[in-house]
Amino acid sequence: MPEFIDLLPPQDALEKLLAIIEFQPAVEEIDTSGAQSRVLLEEVFSPHALPTFTRSTVDGYAVRARDTHGASDSMPAYLELVGEIRMGQTAGFFLSPNECGLIHTGGMLPEGANAVVMLENTQLAREGEIEILRSAAVGENVIKIGEDIQQGEVIVPAGKVLHPADIGGLLALGLTRVMVAKRPIVGIISSGDEIVPPGTEIQIGQIRDINSYSLAALIEKAGAVARIYGIVPDEEEPLRAAAVRAVQECDLVVITAGSSASNRDLTAKVIDSLGGPGVIVHGVNVRPGKPTILAACSSADTDQLKPVIGLPGNPVSALVIATLFVEPLIDLLSGIEGDRLRPLIQAKLTINLSSSAGREDWLPVKLVGSSGEFSAEPIFGKSNLIFTLSRADGLLHIPSQATGLNAGEMANVRLL
Amino acid sequence: MPEFIDLLPPQDALEKLLAIIEFQPAVEEIDTSGAQSRVLLEEVFSPHALPTFTRSTVDGYAVRARDTHGASDSMPAYLELVGEIRMGQTAGFFLSPNECGLIHTGGMLPEGANAVVMLENTQLAREGEIEILRSAAVGENVIKIGEDIQQGEVIVPAGKVLHPADIGGLLALGLTRVMVAKRPIVGIISSGDEIVPPGTEIQIGQIRDINSYSLAALIEKAGAVARIYGIVPDEEEPLRAAAVRAVQECDLVVITAGSSASNRDLTAKVIDSLGGPGVIVHGVNVRPGKPTILAACSSADTDQLKPVIGLPGNPVSALVIATLFVEPLIDLLSGIEGDRLRPLIQAKLTINLSSSAGREDWLPVKLVGSSGEFSAEPIFGKSNLIFTLSRADGLLHIPSQATGLNAGEMANVRLL
Repeated sequence: MPEFIDLLPPQDALEKLLAIIEFQPAVEEIDTSGAQSRVLLEEVFSPHALPTFTRSTVDGYAVRARDTHGASDSMPAYLELVGEIRMGQTAGFFLSPNECGLIHTGGMLPEGANAVVMLENTQLAREGEIEILRSAAVGENVIKIGEDIQQGEVIVPAGKVLHPADIGGLLALGLTRVMVAKRPIVGIISSGDEIVPPGTEIQIGQIRDINSYSLAALIEKAGAVARIYGIVPDEEEPLRAAAVRAVQECDLVVITAGSSASNRDLTAKVIDSLGGPGVIVHGVNVRPGKPTILAACSSADTDQLKPVIGLPGNPVSALVIATLFVEPLIDLLSGIEGDRLRPLIQAKLTINLSSSAGREDWLPVKLVGSSGEFSAEPIFGKSNLIFTLSRADGLLHIPSQATGLNAGEMANVRLL
Repeated sequence: MPEFIDLLPPQDALEKLLAIIEFQPAVEEIDTSGAQSRVLLEEVFSPHALPTFTRSTVDGYAVRARDTHGASDSMPAYLELVGEIRMGQTAGFFLSPNECGLIHTGGMLPEGANAVVMLENTQLAREGEIEILRSAAVGENVIKIGEDIQQGEVIVPAGKVLHPADIGGLLALGLTRVMVAKRPIVGIISSGDEIVPPGTEIQIGQIRDINSYSLAALIEKAGAVARIYGIVPDEEEPLRAAAVRAVQECDLVVITAGSSASNRDLTAKVIDSLGGPGVIVHGVNVRPGKPTILAACSSADTDQLKPVIGLPGNPVSALVIATLFVEPLIDLLSGIEGDRLRPLIQAKLTINLSSSAGREDWLPVKLVGSSGEFSAEPIFGKSNLIFTLSRADGLLHIPSQATGLNAGEMANVRLL
């Protein structure tokens, strides 16, 4: 297997591919209320200050701070109550020296007022007069105009995945529509003479198609749209026809072929017959998933290079490799800048594990215990066994420089 | 504020509510291929063994292990090549002693064979005869019938959130439809005389509705269906009418009212006027979000108690409290058993933080650095400021027993 000499570690292999592909996500306008997990491609600026008026953060009395200077339980300040501020309305009165106004949390300060004394720190002296029992500083218990955001300030930076608070922030400013990256479309082609659709009664020697659907699930979870091209036989022409169509219609194409050497060679040959440079990396120093192909292809109608990934045929390797290569490519196609914050979980390994130096390993583990104190129990099984992965909570990482990890060591686990 | 004496910590408050509500998720049948993140309510058993035939895990020669005993480079075993096994088909021949058959990864072992020798460990002696250069043990490079899963074995336990490998496993067994819990429906009512819909030009004193949409985003993210009931004025009758309808139509109801004492009292009064025990907890020892209400109410048409949560009106508190109470309730309504694995991230605090003993704090932080080595930088801002939370990656936890955390200490962060 000459192609496996001097294999690159996964990160280097990915960077080799990224170096020759330009990612240009398309844009669409959607309702802000439905924009969760979508990505803004350009920064959005605040059309006005927020809040638009000075608000109280407590229930109490709006005051001129100076009038409360030195006030205490034993020596209260006495202020004339000149009105109540109704929610959603302007005060309707001006606060002169030695006056106060009843105000509720979120209410607007009347002109002249510059602080609020909490209800708990006051008492009624007599009808129309309030005893203030604490001194208030200027701005105390108040949110000033623009304290949340100033006009023209960046609301959300470009490339950010929108979370619930971002949606709240955009809507607080009246921005009910946003321009976001279109979800990338990822085509999935399965090849294999032994593969039949999942709804089929299988004959001896056949197996049902897993990869189309488990990869589709992973792709949708990563925020892209999965398009399944079905099962093609292990022959050059049908595989090529499916690949040509998929490269034309999708932003990223994933081909899972059988794991035999002849299948791998067929996949590589078909990829090389498409437009563009074709295969960039053939074989990656990772287990499982060594026979991975990374390629850049173009379709007849455009010069734009699109990533094409040849995944190992066995379902566990296919999913592991998809987390290493397909997910980051979806991020880039979605316009995400920086890390999507798919963080690794730290967990204590329960047994000794060995690994080859230079090879990165990803091992299915069950997480036991609770956050901050997880133990990782490896689930051993041949890498062809889908239930090895189904029973796992995540994949434990053995870095390429390590020759193994010891029981009791902390390791990084990527959640499935 | 008598209701704030002896406040429970969030976990105890939640348990007090859980003690009186029975969760009975409804079931629906859906396509397995679309069942990602859905929850099986009953364990599913394997209808047949997988694989259904003995398969090779490598490219090589199917052999009787005994025939290779002692084979080495210097002393190969010589086996007669009697055929090739085609993918997706039975071998079509029986392997007699001193015979071998060419086999591909995933191919079916012929009867009589019990191991496979990798291609790399063989060479062609002459036409029709193969030199075997390594001894093979029985079962070597082979997946046996039922090695992935046995007939009748549990495929997926009840209460598990399905991930891509589970979907693969179910389809591998031909299970194209599954019974899953219906997505719970969560009703959202916003009240406040100062609140207007996000598309509105605001007048001085008004603010746009954030909570309906940021909470809807959080609820959808947690796997439920959000139903927005709109903005109702701070008056008993309209609020009560909306609550009655929501309790009837939804599995869980969230009411965000203003943060003033009178609004809180109004919400509690309305909740107590519905069927069932009403308010169970009023006030929780947490910052932000102290004025939270946990309640159990029934509608006119059923005795079933449904959770009703009164959230603080300010948008940051509302989202924090929703992560503490609404998300776990959605999990229970979805039939999830155990932890959904929404793990906390460990990060190193960049500054000293103080906190009151007995009170749990959740502080917006930015995560800097990379997995396993995150630093958490607190974003300070009044808890009414939505952009404090929009700029954050997560919420840092200061446990109730702590009086603060020191710079350099590791703390738990919950991702937003």
